[in-house]
Amino acid sequence: MVEVGGGVRERVLASFERQGLMVHLGARIEHVGAGEVRIVLPRRPEVTQQHGYFHAGATSSIADSAGGYAAFTLFPEGTSVLTVEFKINLLAPAEGERLEAVGTVIKPGRTLTICRLEVFAATGEDRTLIAAGQQTLIQIEARPER
Amino acid sequence: MVEVGGGVRERVLASFERQGLMVHLGARIEHVGAGEVRIVLPRRPEVTQQHGYFHAGATSSIADSAGGYAAFTLFPEGTSVLTVEFKINLLAPAEGERLEAVGTVIKPGRTLTICRLEVFAATGEDRTLIAAGQQTLIQIEARPER
Amino acid sequence: MVEVGGGVRERVLASFERQGLMVHLGARIEHVGAGEVRIVLPRRPEVTQQHGYFHAGATSSIADSAGGYAAFTLFPEGTSVLTVEFKINLLAPAEGERLEAVGTVIKPGRTLTICRLEVFAATGEDRTLIAAGQQTLIQIEARPER
Amino acid sequence: MVEVGGGVRERVLASFERQGLMVHLGARIEHVGAGEVRIVLPRRPEVTQQHGYFHAGATSSIADSAGGYAAFTLFPEGTSVLTVEFKINLLAPAEGERLEAVGTVIKPGRTLTICRLEVFAATGEDRTLIAAGQQTLIQIEARPER
Repeated sequence: MVEVGGGVRERVLASFERQGLMVHLGARIEHVGAGEVRIVLPRRPEVTQQHGYFHAGATSSIADSAGGYAAFTLFPEGTSVLTVEFKINLLAPAEGERLEAVGTVIKPGRTLTICRLEVFAATGEDRTLIAAGQQTLIQIEARPER
Repeated sequence: MVEVGGGVRERVLASFERQGLMVHLGARIEHVGAGEVRIVLPRRPEVTQQHGYFHAGATSSIADSAGGYAAFTLFPEGTSVLTVEFKINLLAPAEGERLEAVGTVIKPGRTLTICRLEVFAATGEDRTLIAAGQQTLIQIEARPER
Repeated sequence: MVEVGGGVRERVLASFERQGLMVHLGARIEHVGAGEVRIVLPRRPEVTQQHGYFHAGATSSIADSAGGYAAFTLFPEGTSVLTVEFKINLLAPAEGERLEAVGTVIKPGRTLTICRLEVFAATGEDRTLIAAGQQTLIQIEARPER
Repeated sequence: MVEVGGGVRERVLASFERQGLMVHLGARIEHVGAGEVRIVLPRRPEVTQQHGYFHAGATSSIADSAGGYAAFTLFPEGTSVLTVEFKINLLAPAEGERLEAVGTVIKPGRTLTICRLEVFAATGEDRTLIAAGQQTLIQIEARPER
């Protein structure tokens, strides 16, 4: 996977660090490509549900951010991205050392961009698809980020 | 809204407290009715995105839990609930003192239960619908909760 | 339910008659309100699946049109409506004399409008909710209709 | 793409022919693989919307059937398939000689199966992705087909 040029990558990372929720969950961006972003979330009790698996909310939170930034990599400067909606299927119990969420643009557009969302549970080299979804994003004029 | 009888309410609250993510976000259950659960999430930087609004992931996390427990209130003892999938539209910027997520069963079933999800942003008495969705849940044999 | 004023109603009905699919299925518009449209589809073999129930595709087709026209009733003249996406749960076998699809705007907007979709199976006075969904629509400049 | 063995293929084709809606729309099955089914719908006025494009309802009807039969190819004899829910994004105007809907199982299961849905508009050798979605199906005991 090819990394995107400096300007975009920096804009994505700077924006990500201002997402209080991602920081609070302990998520980090691992890859920024053109139309593709991967976010990793290590397992710890703070992101689980009652059976000890990753909470569907944690799974969908990093999937939403991965898709949002994947779209953002294709947007011109001076614009921002907002999630219009997303749908996600939880395919298997989310157990493992970490989650890896991959957002991939399947249809870029001037107003709306559509992404595929995939989340894998990983332990060492093992990787299992545990969630799959689809997301609609809208490009808006840049708003000041905090 | 009528509260449900003691046993169900206790089972919901006990399970909720074992959801590490809900505790970590600072969410709490405010209402447990038959087929309807409301969860409140106060605003703080830990649950925001880059513009300072509540993060779509926080919004959908409490919506997912509200729907899951709404379904759970109708399940027999000795069973657990898992989210199969959900879809959520983010309707407006999620700004305010707190979010209120309401999960409501629209179709109960022995295997699958369908819920409506609504999230309001609230400040004092003001309340605005900022997200709406739909969720499919499955009833399974009880798994040990941590 | 209040019917909308003449201009809007006429624009909806004229457009509907140009939807080859709706005519081919035998669907008709039964109600045009501000932000709410109801479409009825009588049962006949041409709209069924292999068990003799209404086909999920027929159910979702009339739901999609009901939501699209519900949004359209709130759009200014000189604009058209396109479906961005929709999600629908099939809640129960769709059996009965007819289906009634109701589209209701839950969030109007200048660019995007969100609708709730409900489909009932009806026989005489009996009416059962057999599908529920949610839909995102976009307002565009009018395109020539055939 | 490998075609599946005779028994499954025959069961799929026989069932498809009993779907009154698919016959009425003029759709036909073009490929039956293990966990993958492709359905083709030629363009004619009976499947269009008001601008002359394929109707979103036609697009989603064949997508729903493609996913349903894709799941069905993996089910044991004596079972039937029902759509629990699906979500579909309409990515581009659906114009061309024909639509091709591809349903692909991404997660098989004893109770629930999840499919990816893709619809292409095609003219001659040209093929454009015009819709993408995701679908949840349930395996039930066989019901008599008409």
